[in-house]
Amino acid sequence: MNATPNPAPILLVGAGLAGSLLAVLLAKQGFPVVVAERRGDPRARGYVGGRSINLALSVRGITALKDAGIADQVLADALPMPGRIMHPESLTDATGEGTVFQPYSQDPADAILSVSRGGLNIALLDAAERTPGVKLLFDHRCTGVDLDNARATFDTPNGNVELQGRVLIGADGAFSAVRHAMQMTDRFDYSQHYLDAGYKELHIPAPDDLPDLPNGVAEKYNGYAMDPRGLHIWAGRGGGASMMIALPNPDKSFTCTLFWPFADPSGKGHGFRAVEALDDAGVRAFFNRHYPDTRWLMPTLEEDFRKNPTSSLVTVRCEPWRRGRSLILGDAAHAIVPFFGQGMNAAFEDCRILSEMIEEAGGDIERVMDPFWQSRVEHANAIADMAIANFTEMREKVADARFLYHKKVEQAIHAALGQDMPERATPLYNLVSFTNVPYAEARKRGQQLDAAVSEVVGRVPSELLHELGNERWRERVADEARRVLGGQIA
Amino acid sequence: MNATPNPAPILLVGAGLAGSLLAVLLAKQGFPVVVAERRGDPRARGYVGGRSINLALSVRGITALKDAGIADQVLADALPMPGRIMHPESLTDATGEGTVFQPYSQDPADAILSVSRGGLNIALLDAAERTPGVKLLFDHRCTGVDLDNARATFDTPNGNVELQGRVLIGADGAFSAVRHAMQMTDRFDYSQHYLDAGYKELHIPAPDDLPDLPNGVAEKYNGYAMDPRGLHIWAGRGGGASMMIALPNPDKSFTCTLFWPFADPSGKGHGFRAVEALDDAGVRAFFNRHYPDTRWLMPTLEEDFRKNPTSSLVTVRCEPWRRGRSLILGDAAHAIVPFFGQGMNAAFEDCRILSEMIEEAGGDIERVMDPFWQSRVEHANAIADMAIANFTEMREKVADARFLYHKKVEQAIHAALGQDMPERATPLYNLVSFTNVPYAEARKRGQQLDAAVSEVVGRVPSELLHELGNERWRERVADEARRVLGGQIA
Repeated sequence: MNATPNPAPILLVGAGLAGSLLAVLLAKQGFPVVVAERRGDPRARGYVGGRSINLALSVRGITALKDAGIADQVLADALPMPGRIMHPESLTDATGEGTVFQPYSQDPADAILSVSRGGLNIALLDAAERTPGVKLLFDHRCTGVDLDNARATFDTPNGNVELQGRVLIGADGAFSAVRHAMQMTDRFDYSQHYLDAGYKELHIPAPDDLPDLPNGVAEKYNGYAMDPRGLHIWAGRGGGASMMIALPNPDKSFTCTLFWPFADPSGKGHGFRAVEALDDAGVRAFFNRHYPDTRWLMPTLEEDFRKNPTSSLVTVRCEPWRRGRSLILGDAAHAIVPFFGQGMNAAFEDCRILSEMIEEAGGDIERVMDPFWQSRVEHANAIADMAIANFTEMREKVADARFLYHKKVEQAIHAALGQDMPERATPLYNLVSFTNVPYAEARKRGQQLDAAVSEVVGRVPSELLHELGNERWRERVADEARRVLGGQIA
Repeated sequence: MNATPNPAPILLVGAGLAGSLLAVLLAKQGFPVVVAERRGDPRARGYVGGRSINLALSVRGITALKDAGIADQVLADALPMPGRIMHPESLTDATGEGTVFQPYSQDPADAILSVSRGGLNIALLDAAERTPGVKLLFDHRCTGVDLDNARATFDTPNGNVELQGRVLIGADGAFSAVRHAMQMTDRFDYSQHYLDAGYKELHIPAPDDLPDLPNGVAEKYNGYAMDPRGLHIWAGRGGGASMMIALPNPDKSFTCTLFWPFADPSGKGHGFRAVEALDDAGVRAFFNRHYPDTRWLMPTLEEDFRKNPTSSLVTVRCEPWRRGRSLILGDAAHAIVPFFGQGMNAAFEDCRILSEMIEEAGGDIERVMDPFWQSRVEHANAIADMAIANFTEMREKVADARFLYHKKVEQAIHAALGQDMPERATPLYNLVSFTNVPYAEARKRGQQLDAAVSEVVGRVPSELLHELGNERWRERVADEARRVLGGQIA
């Protein structure tokens, strides 16, 4: 048992996804925890039915949820997506014919999971409340932090409140008040960098609300208007600088996220700002032009487009993550763009690793604060870089034949050799999404495999696929890859 | 004349070097200007005699001072430094014998100028006060900025004050309140990055206060304890990661700046933190070991070392520099490290260029705010990069024989061809310090010359210097350089 020698609780700022999970993990180790959250209790409003925003949960997140003992509950409502469902740019058929399923792996268990952000947060808050030692405080907006003394002041409906912790942990998101206090201290390295693209959430309702949906489509897709067993991607529209994705929800709807530049540098008028200036008919025409295969899927498009904000995409990096007796983690320390689906997963991994390090240190949380961030910052920077790189890849290269052949060879190598040499034959996406291999290590291995794939592509050019047929081609790729990877210094 | 159609004054936050210069330039164009400064009026305390902190003023700064009409006054007190005076690491002689003078150029007019920071600020404030239309407000600490409306609130000895400008310009330094307000807005890219080294100011008094100075030294050096006609540099001490510089003051003293890592990564205990932990005898022994040729020059070393803070070295980059009707410039927009002596010069260049653009736009300041920063940010980033690179060069390479030969060839090329082909044969340092060529352009030309120098070094290796003798070697270098540079595509 990790009895705490100090009776003061751990003061957690933020009861979002990372904060509430961390509260559970720390309380299970015997620490009293006080969690102060800026917003009201989302459960007080009751579960908000209807439209939900979803996130892709993958192995890193699941591992942490298992440690907290709530994985089963979360996974019960999750929808597995074992691959990407690509919507070619030329596709006009709106029944799903002509989309291309790209499995992440030969193993269908290698799936990312579509989960409801709201539902997950509520499950985590319920779990925190059930765990002895956790005290949740809502409507507590942090207005000041005394980093050295693990003390913070909060604006609450009952006036100002000061709370004192044994240590203070900021899990208060990309615009963290705790990090902001750190930023005012000497020698705090910090950067916030925005992509030139923004995003907007849109909605594909369940078939009942789609009067124009042809008969048979919902039956074909298990009650959905599109195939729910994959992450839908429309890439390369409007000159290549844009993308739309859709993730399924348990209520048979999809949440779409549209990524476009704010202002199209080509000046063709495709950016968000230009579309926002259009009238309803213009917005509809924009969609019919760029996403013709969604034409009966979005009856509330015009309304959604106006009502939902166009949000920015920021990458935040900083160090150190500790000042005095205060620490930051999750988005507060390393907000990343969503193109690898790893923001939440990386934050949950922070929580798991911090908790493990405290356990190993016999509960001496003060002692692990520096080693924790010093070991994590490299990986946070790695996934930040990879997420930005994935945006370029997803939006610009998916239509490039050479890129697609390269990816096909990579998947063939993974299928043939992934079992025998997982350290060398597992693609970057799979290492990031379906293992707990640290991000920087995953990146290194991914780069090595990438070099090997290029070598194999040189020896097995795409013409051979047509010449040999699929099966003999696969054998040939595997043979070449075995030679290249076998000779590689790990 | 640029009569302002709007009667509200330009609101300048910060009356430091950039703020007071800009006030003069804008008022001379006919704008009413209100300048609000956090600190008290430095002139109220009278000119602080004795120790002064100095800065290196070079052509960019001088050009702006000329535009403001106060260059003559400032230059009257400035001490020209036409080259570096290197103190070799092995030097123990403390009379100046054995130091190496490296001229910046064949032309002795190519000198940087040692000026007093305090004296310069006072001269600029006096000039601002003399210029009709300028109103200076001291003890005004900016507590909030309404960027869109060019309005700011200030904490003053008489309570809170709100000021309204036609536009607001933040010239309030590296920790700018105006930039801080911008940082809270969406899509503001920002980074602050610290070097692992810090600095501390130290003092070499005039000979009268140096009882151990041998007879004849002060006479030899025009009343100083060291040669005042150069920038003194002690580099490469303690494993290469450190440096000390000294600049002369008109009162015959020198201000030294010691740059060392905070904590020596080699673990040999050389960093600031380790030296700060020593007693007086330890500090003295540290100096005797690393700077033996200063042994009778620093009688107040122990006291100075304790009393003067160890400060950090930050690089700040951001964009945009405009939000709504507010603009930032100088250190507020691009704080840089001091290793190129360009922080103040870059800020003064901002002021000059903004003023010229307003003039060209017929006084329409609102119209030039975006074009101003969009054209400047590239150059601000370039000098930020070059200043960091110069630290590495100054502290690590000055003892490298190949590097020194490379520099010698570069100077020989400049001496031989600088007149005929100034665009190709002017070294980076000279372009930055002795011209107004935009920083990014200077960097590009410097890189091209650098490549040419490497080629010439390959054809005229250092052995040839001994073989041919200085004069024939110079001819050979010039011949080869003429061939290489003549064939280069500009």
